[in-house]
Amino acid sequence: MPVFLDTTDPDFELEFARLLSAKREDSPDVDDIVAGIIADVRARGDAAVLEMTAKFDRLELEAAGLRFSAEEIDTYCAQVPAAERAALEIAAERIRAYHVRQMPEDAQWTDPDGATLGWRWTPVSAAGLYVPGGLASYPSSVLMNAIPAKVAGVERLCIAVPTPDGIANPLVLLAARIAGVDEIYRIGGAQAIAALAYGTESIAPVDKITGPGNAFVAAAKRRVFGKVGIDMIAGPSEILVIADADNDPEFIALDLLSQAEHDESAQSILITPDAGFAQKVADEVARQLEVLERRGIAGASWRDFGAVIICRDLDEAASLSNRVAPEHLELCVAEPEALSEQIRHAGAIFLGQWTPEAIGDYVGGPNHVLPTARSARFSSGLSVLDFVKRTTLAKMSPEALRAIGPAAETLASSESLQAHGLSVTARLRKLNG
Amino acid sequence: MPVFLDTTDPDFELEFARLLSAKREDSPDVDDIVAGIIADVRARGDAAVLEMTAKFDRLELEAAGLRFSAEEIDTYCAQVPAAERAALEIAAERIRAYHVRQMPEDAQWTDPDGATLGWRWTPVSAAGLYVPGGLASYPSSVLMNAIPAKVAGVERLCIAVPTPDGIANPLVLLAARIAGVDEIYRIGGAQAIAALAYGTESIAPVDKITGPGNAFVAAAKRRVFGKVGIDMIAGPSEILVIADADNDPEFIALDLLSQAEHDESAQSILITPDAGFAQKVADEVARQLEVLERRGIAGASWRDFGAVIICRDLDEAASLSNRVAPEHLELCVAEPEALSEQIRHAGAIFLGQWTPEAIGDYVGGPNHVLPTARSARFSSGLSVLDFVKRTTLAKMSPEALRAIGPAAETLASSESLQAHGLSVTARLRKLNG
Repeated sequence: MPVFLDTTDPDFELEFARLLSAKREDSPDVDDIVAGIIADVRARGDAAVLEMTAKFDRLELEAAGLRFSAEEIDTYCAQVPAAERAALEIAAERIRAYHVRQMPEDAQWTDPDGATLGWRWTPVSAAGLYVPGGLASYPSSVLMNAIPAKVAGVERLCIAVPTPDGIANPLVLLAARIAGVDEIYRIGGAQAIAALAYGTESIAPVDKITGPGNAFVAAAKRRVFGKVGIDMIAGPSEILVIADADNDPEFIALDLLSQAEHDESAQSILITPDAGFAQKVADEVARQLEVLERRGIAGASWRDFGAVIICRDLDEAASLSNRVAPEHLELCVAEPEALSEQIRHAGAIFLGQWTPEAIGDYVGGPNHVLPTARSARFSSGLSVLDFVKRTTLAKMSPEALRAIGPAAETLASSESLQAHGLSVTARLRKLNG
Repeated sequence: MPVFLDTTDPDFELEFARLLSAKREDSPDVDDIVAGIIADVRARGDAAVLEMTAKFDRLELEAAGLRFSAEEIDTYCAQVPAAERAALEIAAERIRAYHVRQMPEDAQWTDPDGATLGWRWTPVSAAGLYVPGGLASYPSSVLMNAIPAKVAGVERLCIAVPTPDGIANPLVLLAARIAGVDEIYRIGGAQAIAALAYGTESIAPVDKITGPGNAFVAAAKRRVFGKVGIDMIAGPSEILVIADADNDPEFIALDLLSQAEHDESAQSILITPDAGFAQKVADEVARQLEVLERRGIAGASWRDFGAVIICRDLDEAASLSNRVAPEHLELCVAEPEALSEQIRHAGAIFLGQWTPEAIGDYVGGPNHVLPTARSARFSSGLSVLDFVKRTTLAKMSPEALRAIGPAAETLASSESLQAHGLSVTARLRKLNG
């Protein structure tokens, strides 16, 4: 059974604090192993990657076979049924349409002192996307990572996807092709992250690495951060649903379960002002858990990390949600737009009863790579901004330098940086002399 | 002597590659020590911070003394001479005027399928800025970190600044006050980062930590990344100047030295098509190094990491600069705007002979916290965007769900996520039944 809380209960603050601080993921400490793998790939390049692929993925390759050929990709793509191809294309088109609106604009202006200022955005030249193998090898994640990169203008976009025992997911390859990915490598784990960050004889290095992965991949991303850019380290998924009594309990139960089925460490929370409705949803969750295909995973997640919170009113619900800072937030209330104005921290908001979170996972348009583990307090979902960077621009006219140069001289002197000051002084002397 | 290269030299590619890969910083591996410090602060809170402050900063405090009182800040601020106060105010005003333009806009639209989509930006609630003590305690960096946070709308903005032997820098405190900082703590090192990230009895935790620091601070930021957001890990500073012969060699020499004087690991590079001009600049650098106050530091940087590159033409100069991806780039050429169009990777560009880089350090307006060590390939300088995050919004109308729901059902099925599919199916059944 999940935990049931009531905000009018005297112990509520204690229980809610416990919920907030519950450690859901017990990642093994693989940092030393990963450090060794990275050092080996840097030292021996392809040879190290090939050895580890043989060892961990049970796949013997030559260097030339690290990359999927165009013909191989053709063959895999041809295996995808038409309905799935069409669904991927609808998803890709909608994701693209959303993300093109995120492209930030350049700016330039001249201020009253005569300084021309501004900035310009340029794309990262090369990016690498990690795609897990096996159960969590999701074609939708390929679209969600690759499309923002291509919209940003990334010229060279690579994927690393392990193929344990040589088995590839045709949908992943088709999603990569639809998204415009340029190179696909059948490598995984920390060795793939090392190869993308530092390069090998066969794999040119990239500048930015994104995408989810296991503890080894996460530790490797943390280690190469600085040499290349990375996205957030993803934790287990979570959903918070704020619902009033005027909802179909089955809808809400399925939405809670659609997070729970991802992972035993996933978390689903319902906040509602109506205790009777809460019970109906909990009963419906229990009913669905009897028949759901992934009932083992979903049941464990709901039992260990699920929560149902009865609140006084929707204002209180919003305030509690802000303390959780959930990855996904559903507002299943009569006026979701009004309630959303009170939300300060959430990765993505789904408004109204016709917007199940699963729509956002696939075809809504917004990105499904979102901040987990309360990191929506300080970070955003993946976007075009992750694949561009800004160069600031400044040009002083002689008048501008005369106007603001003396303040720079003063501050340079107070920071004991003499050459800084002199570089201004020498110019002012010439201008004034 | 710095290295002299010529792009027409047969060995040029080899020498240039060596320059690009030169390891300029040999950070000690303090990761284990830092892990211990963080664990101690998490376990013992204030008591641990107070002990370490006594040990490392030779400063005995009570918990109540960790934070500067308003009266103490008043007293320090009153020590700042009027000229320095005025210069800080000019700088703050110009930095604020630049950064308010960075505030990103919310968006919302309804697409042809009837889906209402968009996003909303909200500020981080609490941020902490690290300010180094001692020699590198720069008031300008306080402005550059704090003003974007306040422009973003951060409600609670803290500073941690160590005060070895109890000595504080009045200009740092005044800069904090001018920028609107809410709390200032006299703590430093990894213990300060741990206190900001996890909180203690006296210091509430923050959501985001920015600001430069030594190896201990950098290792601590890397470790708390995920629990809180961080900015980039800063490396030693660098400048690349592209100059034609029509420049005053003294200007260019002083600009190169204004990076070199920061740090023995700083790097200054001149690229010019005119060998005679290059020699004049090198001679002028040598002349200035005889008298410069920080000639020890600047001389070591110029000797060990400085470079002068003679190129065929300015196109080649731009192309070489893109391979360096410098933190600071000066374009001292007849048509700097035209040349800037060819620049793809740089933290900040300074256009024309009247824009010394030092102007950007203090009063230009753009941020001086910029990507170092070639990370301009994938990251940007500090900005308002570092203190806000984006929540995506999606609302399906019944028509929108009818239009795109089936594609979501198909993809959920192909990813074996049954509850995802059922959450859509249940709604479509109700809509269609």
